[in-house]
Amino acid sequence: MTSHFLPFLTWARHYNRANLTNDLIAAAVVTIMLVPQGMAYAMLAGLPPQAGLYGAMLPLLIYAAFGTSRSLAVGPVAVVALMTAAAAGTVAEIGAPGYHLAALWLALLSGAMLLLMGVFRMGFIASFLSHPVISGFITAAGILIAASQLRHLLGIETSGKTLPQVIPSIAANIGAVSLATLALSASVLAFLIWSRAGLAALLQRLGLSAPLAKLLGKTALLLAVVVSTFATWALGLDAMGVAILGDIPRGLPEFGLPAFDLTLIQLLAAPALMIAIVGYVESISIAQTLAAKKRQFVDADKELVALGLANLGAGASNAMPVTGGLSRSIVNHDAGAETPAAGAITAVMIALAVLVLTPLMAYLPRATLAAIIIVAVLSLLDFRALPRTLAYSRADGAAMAATMAVTLLIGVEEGLLAGVGLSLVLYLYRTSRPHMAVVGQVAGTEHFRNVERHEVTQDPHVFSIRVDESLYFPNARALEDRIVQALADLPELRHVVLQANAVNYIDASALESLEAINDRLKAAEVQFHLSEVKGPVMDQLKRSHFLDDLTGEVFLTQFDAMATLSPELTRACLQAERCETLRPLPAQ
Amino acid sequence: MTSHFLPFLTWARHYNRANLTNDLIAAAVVTIMLVPQGMAYAMLAGLPPQAGLYGAMLPLLIYAAFGTSRSLAVGPVAVVALMTAAAAGTVAEIGAPGYHLAALWLALLSGAMLLLMGVFRMGFIASFLSHPVISGFITAAGILIAASQLRHLLGIETSGKTLPQVIPSIAANIGAVSLATLALSASVLAFLIWSRAGLAALLQRLGLSAPLAKLLGKTALLLAVVVSTFATWALGLDAMGVAILGDIPRGLPEFGLPAFDLTLIQLLAAPALMIAIVGYVESISIAQTLAAKKRQFVDADKELVALGLANLGAGASNAMPVTGGLSRSIVNHDAGAETPAAGAITAVMIALAVLVLTPLMAYLPRATLAAIIIVAVLSLLDFRALPRTLAYSRADGAAMAATMAVTLLIGVEEGLLAGVGLSLVLYLYRTSRPHMAVVGQVAGTEHFRNVERHEVTQDPHVFSIRVDESLYFPNARALEDRIVQALADLPELRHVVLQANAVNYIDASALESLEAINDRLKAAEVQFHLSEVKGPVMDQLKRSHFLDDLTGEVFLTQFDAMATLSPELTRACLQAERCETLRPLPAQ
Repeated sequence: MTSHFLPFLTWARHYNRANLTNDLIAAAVVTIMLVPQGMAYAMLAGLPPQAGLYGAMLPLLIYAAFGTSRSLAVGPVAVVALMTAAAAGTVAEIGAPGYHLAALWLALLSGAMLLLMGVFRMGFIASFLSHPVISGFITAAGILIAASQLRHLLGIETSGKTLPQVIPSIAANIGAVSLATLALSASVLAFLIWSRAGLAALLQRLGLSAPLAKLLGKTALLLAVVVSTFATWALGLDAMGVAILGDIPRGLPEFGLPAFDLTLIQLLAAPALMIAIVGYVESISIAQTLAAKKRQFVDADKELVALGLANLGAGASNAMPVTGGLSRSIVNHDAGAETPAAGAITAVMIALAVLVLTPLMAYLPRATLAAIIIVAVLSLLDFRALPRTLAYSRADGAAMAATMAVTLLIGVEEGLLAGVGLSLVLYLYRTSRPHMAVVGQVAGTEHFRNVERHEVTQDPHVFSIRVDESLYFPNARALEDRIVQALADLPELRHVVLQANAVNYIDASALESLEAINDRLKAAEVQFHLSEVKGPVMDQLKRSHFLDDLTGEVFLTQFDAMATLSPELTRACLQAERCETLRPLPAQ
Repeated sequence: MTSHFLPFLTWARHYNRANLTNDLIAAAVVTIMLVPQGMAYAMLAGLPPQAGLYGAMLPLLIYAAFGTSRSLAVGPVAVVALMTAAAAGTVAEIGAPGYHLAALWLALLSGAMLLLMGVFRMGFIASFLSHPVISGFITAAGILIAASQLRHLLGIETSGKTLPQVIPSIAANIGAVSLATLALSASVLAFLIWSRAGLAALLQRLGLSAPLAKLLGKTALLLAVVVSTFATWALGLDAMGVAILGDIPRGLPEFGLPAFDLTLIQLLAAPALMIAIVGYVESISIAQTLAAKKRQFVDADKELVALGLANLGAGASNAMPVTGGLSRSIVNHDAGAETPAAGAITAVMIALAVLVLTPLMAYLPRATLAAIIIVAVLSLLDFRALPRTLAYSRADGAAMAATMAVTLLIGVEEGLLAGVGLSLVLYLYRTSRPHMAVVGQVAGTEHFRNVERHEVTQDPHVFSIRVDESLYFPNARALEDRIVQALADLPELRHVVLQANAVNYIDASALESLEAINDRLKAAEVQFHLSEVKGPVMDQLKRSHFLDDLTGEVFLTQFDAMATLSPELTRACLQAERCETLRPLPAQ
């Protein structure tokens, strides 16, 4: 039972030396990536570099205890950093005391929301984000992130958060570009892009084994940081206009809750929910993909709890919002991480790095971090997704295009809201038209089929309609409209039969709709019957007055219904080889 | 074709003297109700009385030309008046020049929205309002309306729009109550409540025929207005503290668009959409109920156009937002209205009344109008709806309770938004769990049924799952989770078959989900197959890369799939009388 709440107990009791070796190697590789990425994503979020490093300590320890994925690498990630900057920027200027406070509250609030969603099994809330919306949002966020880092690459000042603000701002300041910064940026970018494939290949040609070469290939980020920091210090590039990181506080974060501010919390609640959901959707998708490779299972509700607690930990340790990151998780998995202990070891290694290395990082150029960010977000961009989705479904393509356009042109939160709103509207539109079929009897059988697809017979006094979906408020009116239409079209109508064999649920709106149908048919002296109602639906209807007010009957089968309401025709048709000619419908 | 756009052409060409007689009688009765109600609802909306009278002129003429209901009586109604007051009150104080301007823009905006929804056949947007939400909202609105009129009944000043504001305000001012006003209010209220049943009965006892007595019973409003106005003038009640209406401009409204103000329009867009949808939902429901009694058909899209144009007309003639009203429509129908001409005749009669009678109305007490409003909203209150809905479905009951509570305690727009939001969340929750069944073969048949309900056999290498709903973004993840779970649970698994006979649509999110399932199964060396895919769904899948990437096959039937993937077991089971014992599933 305890392992239900503390998933680490399930693997910790079998933990052995071989596991430890593998986890240590994976942790070391992830740490090498995470030190520069943590500082880079903190810069992207507008926070001091240590916020990113702290985000790689306590949250990782917490996830190791509560998470169910054996490969997920939690910590600061690019998209969440961008969303943090967008939200914190609405309440304070970067650098102002309120700014980091806002980021901490975003972590606490999104952590609390994830925790609640997990405890109350409300992970379905994440399904508000349809795939086209999340995919369009991530690509647009990647473009915004890249655009926001151009100023660090060029060594200029820019302003604004959307493309229509950033691009003119870059154009206006392009004259002030720092050539030393530009040269450094270009070198680091070129090295990082080459290293993605080239470094491992080179190491292999130098005689290393393929797996080791691949592992060491991941040191490119560290190499870029070390070499560019040393070059800046040795050549005095900071005096030539290259912006550097400056002093980073040495030591571990201070723990404690940030100052309570109700107004701030109200302002940040909506963006915190978006950060929670976007972070969760990304994280669970990575975790499930990696788990499937080893036939492992990731528990969605427990992941919500684990990510929620990790973010509460981030908020309580001067860090920033965190989630599972794509690139580091793949590296962690490929490097052989066997248990979440790899994450805990990573946290310890990061802490050691902060204690030992921070004094050496003062000369780390911001341009290097910007280059690291840009190379990281390149993998987020999927420009073929839009034409591919449009070709598959125009509605889904429209939702994706709207999300991208609004995110790029108006803002991050607005883009997500527009996408969610549009996909809900389109969903309601599709589900507002339930699949319905007017049915008639197939000759020689007790079967009833769609009159448009089969040769069947109908009694002009009886209108039988089958609904192929559950009845909910978005589609209730469609059934009402169809039956009211039949009432107006068929002057001889005496009975309406609703064949409900595919109806699994009837909500209160649909019940009112059925009552309205019953009343309207009654006013026109037409009886309303049901057939093939499922047991649970029948139980549900018995809790209302509907069955008392029903003018007609509830039949076990559609054949029973017709045998009662139109006995002669039904029996004749049962014995005939073709019965659609027995009594034709009157011309309408 | 022309009659498609101008529905009145369909009835106008057969219009005869008998129609005219009936329409004239109905129009006269409706006019007698509409003159006092129009002024009363204008007062409720915080507008001058003529705004309500103007709302009963041009909009009615327009609806007569474009509407498809033969009984609907369009004009100012109580709930829309309350919503107008709530929205206009956010941009200006009652009586300030901007207030009536806001009301006119609400009419124009909601009219334009209805028109667009009709032209683009987007009536499904109204299904965002589930029945429990609209029902709870109307009852709560009725309570708020009644509470807002207490000040007129008592002759005191109050402030606030929500119950927690209005009730203390009444309590604080109760000492200033005007006894003359109270006496007048009590008399008028008592008369109106008695007259609902008593007047017709009395007239019948005096020798009138039952139908005539019923018709003349509708003159109670007019009687109350005439008698209380005369009494106020004759007894000089206005000097004793009875608030009177004062001068009403004589003559027809001035036509023309109100001043354009982009900021105002942006502020009013959201409330205008709510007014449009609430007004439409109420109106179409009344129109369909009345049409069914005569086996007539009301075209929902044309109704949107007609109500949209009617509101544009209201906004362009110094009136207020309008829609189809319940009580007047029933009176119109019962009085024998045969065509929309009754509405056009009503408009002319109202115009005559305004030209002739307005000078006589200066002494009309506001308390009389308040009593008329209160009696009208009594029919809106349905306190049994909440327990009834809660008994039927706790989720729907919760949505209704939330709508009522937020409307009463926080505000009209907030209440609607809370209800819509909660019902969408609950809808997503329910639809996020599609009906799925693991299936196995029934002995001696080619049929496959739910393993939980039938004695069937399964091959431990093959996991067959049937989804009983279309695949959309809210439920796509559930299928993914179920299959990933099976992958973790069944160590011998080699094939997964998705039986898709009930899937009518696969949206882009569900497609991505199927691709993720395919990829994850591929990583675990399990093949993914489909069976019984419908034609349109197959066409849709062919527009994606899914079928190219699919590791398995698409089978025509589930039997074909099993006969290929597990030929021995399937053939043995086809010939056996019981086959669940042929090869049992391994213990999990």
